[in-house]
Amino acid sequence: MRYLVLATKNKGKIKEIYEILKEYKDYLKTLDEFIEISLPEEIGKTYEENAFLKAKFISEKLNLPAIGEDSGLEVNMLKDILGVYSSRFEEELSYKERMNIILEKLKDVPWEKRIARFICKVVYYDHKNDIKIVTGGVVEGYIAYEIRGDSGFGYDPIFYYPPLGKTFGELKEQEKNEISHRTIAFKKLKEFFPILIKGG
Amino acid sequence: MRYLVLATKNKGKIKEIYEILKEYKDYLKTLDEFIEISLPEEIGKTYEENAFLKAKFISEKLNLPAIGEDSGLEVNMLKDILGVYSSRFEEELSYKERMNIILEKLKDVPWEKRIARFICKVVYYDHKNDIKIVTGGVVEGYIAYEIRGDSGFGYDPIFYYPPLGKTFGELKEQEKNEISHRTIAFKKLKEFFPILIKGG
Repeated sequence: MRYLVLATKNKGKIKEIYEILKEYKDYLKTLDEFIEISLPEEIGKTYEENAFLKAKFISEKLNLPAIGEDSGLEVNMLKDILGVYSSRFEEELSYKERMNIILEKLKDVPWEKRIARFICKVVYYDHKNDIKIVTGGVVEGYIAYEIRGDSGFGYDPIFYYPPLGKTFGELKEQEKNEISHRTIAFKKLKEFFPILIKGG
Repeated sequence: MRYLVLATKNKGKIKEIYEILKEYKDYLKTLDEFIEISLPEEIGKTYEENAFLKAKFISEKLNLPAIGEDSGLEVNMLKDILGVYSSRFEEELSYKERMNIILEKLKDVPWEKRIARFICKVVYYDHKNDIKIVTGGVVEGYIAYEIRGDSGFGYDPIFYYPPLGKTFGELKEQEKNEISHRTIAFKKLKEFFPILIKGG
């Protein structure tokens, strides 16, 4: 048996990931269980690069396998400012303020052009054994006309998910964890957990 | 059950890979079982990029998971011309001629500076399910003073492997398959085969 370290400090993500991987929670460690560690800046050009930056940094630092994650909101009409740069968009503002800026930019855009998607890439990296696994998840939706709900985190309250007729901010934790981009990506990695926890 | 396609046309590699993965040979397919396909040029800057280029191309083309491989010979004294560029070094010449050029370049270099290593990166890619696995293998040795043996392929006859006191060209097929860089990388991927062949 050996531990896998989650290379993120985002409490919202950690909560979701623990729920998705609950059968393996005894094998997971979070960064706050170690001495103070700063994660590297997310300077990658893709979600995979950013997720790998974090996993590699932590795997090498702690000499354990690590799991990095990067995700973003892609809005067809706002290609240049969101996507892989979502978490850096107007970074000094609160998510509520950032969502209001997005809604303002899209205020005259009709429904069919408000197409958006949440994207997630997960990277498992074990530097000692030179093994990397990359999985992805995508969920399609629309940018709502207003902020709705206060569940989830980040841009969840403006991401409308047609199959449930709600924004991600209106979903119960469990509902979101059944369908989210993060769930899709982590479930694929989870398939390999029986092998990953055996260690090498 | 589903098939995994080997994204290489190199007969020497195919033979070795089938031997390493022999328990799973019924799940493997080679490119010659499909209509004529040209592999993309190996223009990547790293072994991983080249292996991924091939796996991605084939996975998308055939709509099946594919396994790409890239390997190279790194010689400390010849960093600029070999490494990831090994297979492109003096490409128009035979391997015998290429090995003779390398031996000539190193003719006055003493043993302790003839350090070399074979490196292999393997990439499994399943574009439909957005899953990628990357594994690596390295084997350390020296560049011999002469071509020795005619087993294996590529630069094997000038790669001296101290633990066995022979060049890779002098090893029996089975001996090489116990210790080679390719074996190391493929054995790591093989761990995941019980999951990979189940399909998704």
